[in-house]
Amino acid sequence: MTHPVTPKGTIRGVGLGPGDPDLMSVKADRLLRHASHVAFFRKAGRIGQARRILDGMLRSDVTEIAMEYPVTTEIPLSDPRYNQILSAFYEASAARLRGLSEAGQDVVVVSEGDPFFYGSFMHLYSRLKDDCPVEVVPAITGMSAAWTATGLPVTWGDDVLSVVMGTLPEDVLVGHMARADALVVMKIGRNFAKVCDALHHTGRFDDAWLIEYAAMADQTVQRLSEAGDRVAPYFSIIVVHGNGRRP
Amino acid sequence: MTHPVTPKGTIRGVGLGPGDPDLMSVKADRLLRHASHVAFFRKAGRIGQARRILDGMLRSDVTEIAMEYPVTTEIPLSDPRYNQILSAFYEASAARLRGLSEAGQDVVVVSEGDPFFYGSFMHLYSRLKDDCPVEVVPAITGMSAAWTATGLPVTWGDDVLSVVMGTLPEDVLVGHMARADALVVMKIGRNFAKVCDALHHTGRFDDAWLIEYAAMADQTVQRLSEAGDRVAPYFSIIVVHGNGRRP
Repeated sequence: MTHPVTPKGTIRGVGLGPGDPDLMSVKADRLLRHASHVAFFRKAGRIGQARRILDGMLRSDVTEIAMEYPVTTEIPLSDPRYNQILSAFYEASAARLRGLSEAGQDVVVVSEGDPFFYGSFMHLYSRLKDDCPVEVVPAITGMSAAWTATGLPVTWGDDVLSVVMGTLPEDVLVGHMARADALVVMKIGRNFAKVCDALHHTGRFDDAWLIEYAAMADQTVQRLSEAGDRVAPYFSIIVVHGNGRRP
Repeated sequence: MTHPVTPKGTIRGVGLGPGDPDLMSVKADRLLRHASHVAFFRKAGRIGQARRILDGMLRSDVTEIAMEYPVTTEIPLSDPRYNQILSAFYEASAARLRGLSEAGQDVVVVSEGDPFFYGSFMHLYSRLKDDCPVEVVPAITGMSAAWTATGLPVTWGDDVLSVVMGTLPEDVLVGHMARADALVVMKIGRNFAKVCDALHHTGRFDDAWLIEYAAMADQTVQRLSEAGDRVAPYFSIIVVHGNGRRP
């Protein structure tokens, strides 16, 4: 006698875009409004930006799965314990989703921005893709919202765009800033002074814009030279526009 | 006696995303379904990819404005006449939209991908923004659809992503390919052999993927090394994934 086999549920990594629910894709909007299970990352004790974008969209009987990042502020990135703690967290989160999939349950895992572009969902995806059906829905990136907010096109003609993280060493930043036509700098926070130094060093500072909370309610847009030394810790993006060929 | 003044209409540059109507933003979808005037670029004698994405979405009484690129295949990019012909075309297209705005008419101008990221709408935007209300709606880029189609995240941790055009000289391509962790190459077409040479020269060829028609009905995804020497002339993107920090 054979037992009936429950088909595995699909884990969908769905990008929410930059923050304005109106900038979500039609597909993301539909998947979320129908989802029975929705998972999201957040810091412990916070609502979380991803969850906030979903306000008013979810079914009343939805099961919400909050995956809360372990607190790591005391541990430097270079300490091997940092990676161990995060790895254990992603393993546990993946195991929870794997269990739901094995029970036949579809789950929508949301992430801010585009899931495959510096997103946390990638760490679940790499742990799940060989075990259960996984689908990824791309989304508008935070950087698209940032350059749109400046009111200036970011790349023209043959412009090279380089996307760099403020966490990189200054000489690496300088190398890319000197070569690229258009620039996007993310992960600024504590690296703000270093990023500004690298922009000064390559003559790009005066053409740089600082966008905080792009496409969110508290969006600000200003020239970096007018920004002072206070920046939003996480949702800040610096854009330097290209100046390529234009008829 | 004063004459009543008609308020100017708003010209909206709306990104359609990579090609699948389901990947349009909720905002783009709504604007298009309600629009009385929709403008799009296309080659003379073609339906045009942007217009094709809109099939079945528009009002039955919509006014469609096809802006047909002048034929420039006989003229090299470096010839000054090339720029003159394109410039005259954008001037004429902008004048047509300006006239509609002055008559109080809102117009949705659609573009594939994200309007401010290598998009043709920028050439209208720069000519219109001082004369009439202009709004830009960002969208999912073709490159997001391309890296999603590979089933592999494009950037991890502190990876640098550089976006380069195949039209650039080989030494410029090599400089960026050697430095960046993740790569996107667009405008491949006639430059395919040069792009492959630059990827070989920097040891990136074996890790490169070729995506044709990302998020469209005839999407193909393959390793570049298995692609042979035939590529789709326009909707081809090469992706090399980063390999940065991952817990």
